[in-house]
Amino acid sequence: MDLLYFFLLIWPPYVANGSAVLANKFKIRHPIDFGKTFVDGRRIFGDGKTYEGFLIGLSTGTFIGYAPNLLYKHLSLLDAFVLSIAALLGDLFGAFIKRRLCMPRGYPAFPLDQLDFLLTSLAVYTLYKDISVEYIIAAVIITPLIHRITNYIAYYLRLKKEPW
Amino acid sequence: MDLLYFFLLIWPPYVANGSAVLANKFKIRHPIDFGKTFVDGRRIFGDGKTYEGFLIGLSTGTFIGYAPNLLYKHLSLLDAFVLSIAALLGDLFGAFIKRRLCMPRGYPAFPLDQLDFLLTSLAVYTLYKDISVEYIIAAVIITPLIHRITNYIAYYLRLKKEPW
Repeated sequence: MDLLYFFLLIWPPYVANGSAVLANKFKIRHPIDFGKTFVDGRRIFGDGKTYEGFLIGLSTGTFIGYAPNLLYKHLSLLDAFVLSIAALLGDLFGAFIKRRLCMPRGYPAFPLDQLDFLLTSLAVYTLYKDISVEYIIAAVIITPLIHRITNYIAYYLRLKKEPW
Repeated sequence: MDLLYFFLLIWPPYVANGSAVLANKFKIRHPIDFGKTFVDGRRIFGDGKTYEGFLIGLSTGTFIGYAPNLLYKHLSLLDAFVLSIAALLGDLFGAFIKRRLCMPRGYPAFPLDQLDFLLTSLAVYTLYKDISVEYIIAAVIITPLIHRITNYIAYYLRLKKEPW
C-alpha cells in the first residue's frame, strides 16, 4: 500500500465534505430537496443539505482536492472531481438515512457521518479506476483518528463547544 | 438464506445487549473497568458498563436467546451463550471507542451502537460455526430498521423522550 497515494485519494472527499458546511455562512440557501417530504412525512434530506453547500463542496473538493497532485501527479483533475461529487452524494445518502430515523439536522451519528461520504467516494471511484481493497479498509480504520483530530481543532478554534 | 435461521441467530445478541441496561435499575453497580482510566486519561469503558449488566445480559441472552430453539432447534444453548458473550464484548469495544473519542456515556453513535455488539457476535460465531456472509450483510441492512422500531417502542413506553 502506497501511503502517499492513500492520502491523495482521501483528500478530495474530505475537502468536499468539510467545505460544504461553509454554505451555512450564506444568508439565503436552497435546500436540495426543495423542502419536500418523503413518503414517511419527514424531509427527504432536510435544510442542512443545500445547492450552495453542494457547489462549494464540489468546486473546493475538485480544485483544492486536486492541488497536491500538481506536485505528486497521482490523481487527475477529473479524479478529484469524481471523488468529490461521489463524496457529496454519499453525504446526502447519510442525511437521507438520518431523516428516515427521525434524527434532526446536525444530530450526531458516529461513524455514519464520517463514513457515508468517504466510503461512497472510494466505492464510486473503484467503478472507474482500480484501487486495492486495502485502501478502503485503511480509510475505515483511520476514520476515528481523523474524526478525533478534526474535532479537537474545531474545539480549539471555538467552532465547537465540546471536544467530541 | 434461511430467514428463520437468520432471526434465531440475531435474537441472542439483541437480547443480551438489550437486557444489559436493566442493570441500571440496581442501586449498587460495579464498573467493569473498576473506575480505571486508559493511557489518554479517560475512563477505559466508563460507568455505563458494569459486571451486573454483563451478567444480566449474558444470562438473559443465553436463556431467552436460546428459548425459541426449543421449538425450532437451530441453535444449541452453547451457541446462544457464545453469541451473547461475544455481543457483550462487542458492546464493550464500542464503549471503548466512544471513550477514546471523548464521547460521554450514553452519547448517541449511529450505527456504532447498533453494530458493535451484533457484528462482533456474528464474527465470533463464524469462528466456530460456518455461517454464510449473506447473514452478516442482512444483519447490517436490517439494523436501521430494527433501531427505528425499538426506538419507537421505547418512545411510546415513555422510556425515551424523543423518537430517535
